[in-house]
Amino acid sequence: MSFHNPILTVDIVMLTLDGGQLHVALMPRTDEPFAGRAALPGGYVHADPATGRVDKSTTHAALRILKQKLGFTPRHLEQVYTESGPTRDPRGWSASVVHLALHEPAALAPLVEAGTVTLHPVHPQPHLPPLAFDHRRLIDLALDRLKAKATYSTLLAHLLPPVFRLSDLRMAYELVCGTTENKANFRRKMLAADALIPTDIVIGSGGRPAEGYRLREDVTTIDGLISGA
Amino acid sequence: MSFHNPILTVDIVMLTLDGGQLHVALMPRTDEPFAGRAALPGGYVHADPATGRVDKSTTHAALRILKQKLGFTPRHLEQVYTESGPTRDPRGWSASVVHLALHEPAALAPLVEAGTVTLHPVHPQPHLPPLAFDHRRLIDLALDRLKAKATYSTLLAHLLPPVFRLSDLRMAYELVCGTTENKANFRRKMLAADALIPTDIVIGSGGRPAEGYRLREDVTTIDGLISGA
Repeated sequence: MSFHNPILTVDIVMLTLDGGQLHVALMPRTDEPFAGRAALPGGYVHADPATGRVDKSTTHAALRILKQKLGFTPRHLEQVYTESGPTRDPRGWSASVVHLALHEPAALAPLVEAGTVTLHPVHPQPHLPPLAFDHRRLIDLALDRLKAKATYSTLLAHLLPPVFRLSDLRMAYELVCGTTENKANFRRKMLAADALIPTDIVIGSGGRPAEGYRLREDVTTIDGLISGA
Repeated sequence: MSFHNPILTVDIVMLTLDGGQLHVALMPRTDEPFAGRAALPGGYVHADPATGRVDKSTTHAALRILKQKLGFTPRHLEQVYTESGPTRDPRGWSASVVHLALHEPAALAPLVEAGTVTLHPVHPQPHLPPLAFDHRRLIDLALDRLKAKATYSTLLAHLLPPVFRLSDLRMAYELVCGTTENKANFRRKMLAADALIPTDIVIGSGGRPAEGYRLREDVTTIDGLISGA
């Protein structure tokens, strides 16, 4: 049987909370096609034993690419959907395994400073420049997944600094889910999940100082590699 | 840049309800590797314009393969996960886009009769012969997805004949979710979903005749192609 193997890539929708707004991280493309356009961090899956560069899975490919391009491992990474077809990449039939990544803003700040990365608000509607490929659709897929998974889990804590107030977490939920949450109910449900640890750090010297919480240390969630809450 | 494109396939975990048990459909492999072993229906994604055979997406590839191998289009098809790596296929680095398909048992019966397909119970634990590739894991991924999505939606009606009793649907839920459902609550929630239409067919001449329901006709759910409840 003769067949032509398609192109296989990964793209990562990296989200963070910056200035009380959910943002997606984009990078200008250095190569054709779409050179100069804003795009999701992504790249080819390495699958050729002859080069000695072989990814163990598409998740490992996503981690390698994030390490190379952003310099860190995200606090949450999960596979969302594989988008594919003959026309989405001018180089040929391609499939991209789309990943959702969550991380706190501090790690992205120096990259934004250096001009390597730009952050763009995605809520309530994405405000984005023209993007390479079908990356606008890939962002929508990841946002839908985040919204579906966020309800009453501690997932969104991965968007916040290591120590945060319950009110910060509630704000993240309200942003992502588009709902208003009752303070007492939210607190009860979040603490019941047993993934938040109180710290002795008090956050906010001004109007509303409050107890700081952190995620249990084992709750770093890399899809299929490290399991957590 | 030089790279070696990986193999891209789709595999379909086709589930049905037969004799009150959830079953997965397997077919013996005709080719190496793993010739003769039971395997999920699946195959290469067609991506070579030179052959004139080009799938529009991996979902279209799954539909084409099911049509070729089983002769019908399933009532529900969705992408579950892309499993990948250098060792899962002896032919080389490969990615398989795993799909979950649901269908009523009647369409599978003639294929089972002809020996083309074998049905194997998967609940509470899969009882399966040795399978080709990592297909056992792919089945587990699809079952996890089914369980996560089944709760209080009419999804599992796709496993039943076109007209069914609410008690048939409840039995399917109890099987898949491993829970016992209160009859009255279940009925209320299912009817509230507005996807079930009462028919004037009465099912069961013996002990428990009951009103037959069907799914709204527009509720055939092929991932990304036809949307429904």
